[in-house]
Amino acid sequence: MTTVAAYAAPAADAPLTKTTIERREPGPLDVLIRIEYAGICHSDIHTARNEWGRTRYPLVPGHEIVGIVEAVGSDVTKHAVGDRVGVGCFVASCRECDACRAGAEQHCENRVTGTYNAIGSDGEVTQGGYSTHIVVTEHFVLRVPAGVDPAAAAPLLCAGITLYSPLRRYGAGPGTRVAIIGMGGLGHVGVKIAAALGAEVTVLGHSLSKKGDGLRFGAVDYRATSDPSVFKELRNRFDLILNTVSVNLDMDRYLSLLRLNGVLVELGLPEHPLTLRAFSLGANNRAVAGSSVGGIGETQEMLDFCAEHGIGAEIELISAEQINDAYDRVVASDVRYRFVIDAATI
Amino acid sequence: MTTVAAYAAPAADAPLTKTTIERREPGPLDVLIRIEYAGICHSDIHTARNEWGRTRYPLVPGHEIVGIVEAVGSDVTKHAVGDRVGVGCFVASCRECDACRAGAEQHCENRVTGTYNAIGSDGEVTQGGYSTHIVVTEHFVLRVPAGVDPAAAAPLLCAGITLYSPLRRYGAGPGTRVAIIGMGGLGHVGVKIAAALGAEVTVLGHSLSKKGDGLRFGAVDYRATSDPSVFKELRNRFDLILNTVSVNLDMDRYLSLLRLNGVLVELGLPEHPLTLRAFSLGANNRAVAGSSVGGIGETQEMLDFCAEHGIGAEIELISAEQINDAYDRVVASDVRYRFVIDAATI
Repeated sequence: MTTVAAYAAPAADAPLTKTTIERREPGPLDVLIRIEYAGICHSDIHTARNEWGRTRYPLVPGHEIVGIVEAVGSDVTKHAVGDRVGVGCFVASCRECDACRAGAEQHCENRVTGTYNAIGSDGEVTQGGYSTHIVVTEHFVLRVPAGVDPAAAAPLLCAGITLYSPLRRYGAGPGTRVAIIGMGGLGHVGVKIAAALGAEVTVLGHSLSKKGDGLRFGAVDYRATSDPSVFKELRNRFDLILNTVSVNLDMDRYLSLLRLNGVLVELGLPEHPLTLRAFSLGANNRAVAGSSVGGIGETQEMLDFCAEHGIGAEIELISAEQINDAYDRVVASDVRYRFVIDAATI
Repeated sequence: MTTVAAYAAPAADAPLTKTTIERREPGPLDVLIRIEYAGICHSDIHTARNEWGRTRYPLVPGHEIVGIVEAVGSDVTKHAVGDRVGVGCFVASCRECDACRAGAEQHCENRVTGTYNAIGSDGEVTQGGYSTHIVVTEHFVLRVPAGVDPAAAAPLLCAGITLYSPLRRYGAGPGTRVAIIGMGGLGHVGVKIAAALGAEVTVLGHSLSKKGDGLRFGAVDYRATSDPSVFKELRNRFDLILNTVSVNLDMDRYLSLLRLNGVLVELGLPEHPLTLRAFSLGANNRAVAGSSVGGIGETQEMLDFCAEHGIGAEIELISAEQINDAYDRVVASDVRYRFVIDAATI
């Protein structure tokens, strides 16, 4: 065991404070990573504040991790000391079930192990990226290509793959029309990736306050859904709509924007169940789908794609002592567009 | 105009009675069909009884029509006198919009014309197949191949295509597992088609009362959903679930039966909106989709497929004077599996 510095939430109603945690000694297939950057995801806040229940304290959040390999186990072949690497939302899965073998480790039938607040294979609670170091089995460690800024790459490990996976699954590309609902931490990366894939991208925001940014990120249209005429004008228009906001939408209204065989992917985490009329689906053979990050192979593909197209998240780099202020600002939607912690300040 | 015999509902609360209606003279692109058989679809009953509102009386229902071409207009090339043909749920569309050009006339952006209770191109209310003759534009008339019993083919024009279209769209075939919820007029045809496509078919019925039939139609498994252990045993099992029952299901429970990237297609017409948790979709990247019959090209493909595989609906052939009794029996689910009217008795 090695003692390393970290920022942890001691309880649901207490701010994160500096502390130390133990990391396991690297086994034969493990990689020891010196963390450079850790993104702040809204899920970190939900978990730190126990808003989803079942948080194990003290909790070190962070599942958007970029760093440098500092040591490798004797059997590691995928990574070498000095490589820049990344870790996303999970650090283990059974690797034997149908889902794992299909490259969808996040849907492991025998339980995927989250990067934090899960029980690891050693029986200990996993602790995330708000820390100076982490030890992860090589299979679950991604290569961060040279073409992408490492701090801006950190949010790709969760926000990026969350958008990339459904965009690819549902064929976003030249000749397709994609709408992104909400342009926050998830949405703004979605606009960049969808545009780079060649799709015609429209942002559906609550207001037009981020319109300039949206067009700069690659959207060709930006509409304020507070204007009801938008729903008439854009009826039957989109092949794919990605909802990145965690509120309960009027699903029937948004479904009416889908053309033949169109799909609305729900990426938000609304408080109440989704409610929709069967007719809204039957018209135009529409579908509502879910999606959950992506597998390791697909996440690597996303990182390579982003490097090739010069895509990173738009970030505000903060020091570790600013984490609690940053949490409040995320909740207030006061960030353009993702906070990333400089782990050298931990 | 030609006067022909028909059975019509004079009002929402009155039985269907024998009457006469006018059919237009066949234009250059029209086909005059002497109707042999007309299936009874639950939609006929909903419309006749004004349960969906907006019924125009008197109403002649019937959109599962098989007959013989008796005359053709001067420019007709697709059909010839003496051919056995079919007519399904719609008889006109704009044929110019994206949906029509994509072969999905049922989703015409400029309004598809239903076979009954719609306003036809001549401004008259369309009247359906409970009649001795009908005049339909050749494009919307299907060829009924020799290999299928004409009376058993009638229900394929609605029930058959309603199941065939999503089975094909979502890749039912060898190596896939398909579940059909409900084995009534729609479901029993779905079992036959899915099995003929090579899928492994499970029926999810309320009870096991039709199990013998289900296995005979091609299912390899038949479960009673009144037994809650079924939901544990079949968790993460199916690639595709087709819901053919018009009641509000516990969607989260049925969604839990879908494996990675699985789709539940809602074909029923439940009274209340669908309600489901976003998490039920996110787990396994699941989707809920709608579907509405199929286009003309796809309906022809379905008829050819059914002929090739010897598939017809299981029917009870009735005379026209039994229509009202048949309606009551459909509502009571007392039919195995579809009533078809012998139009020679009209």
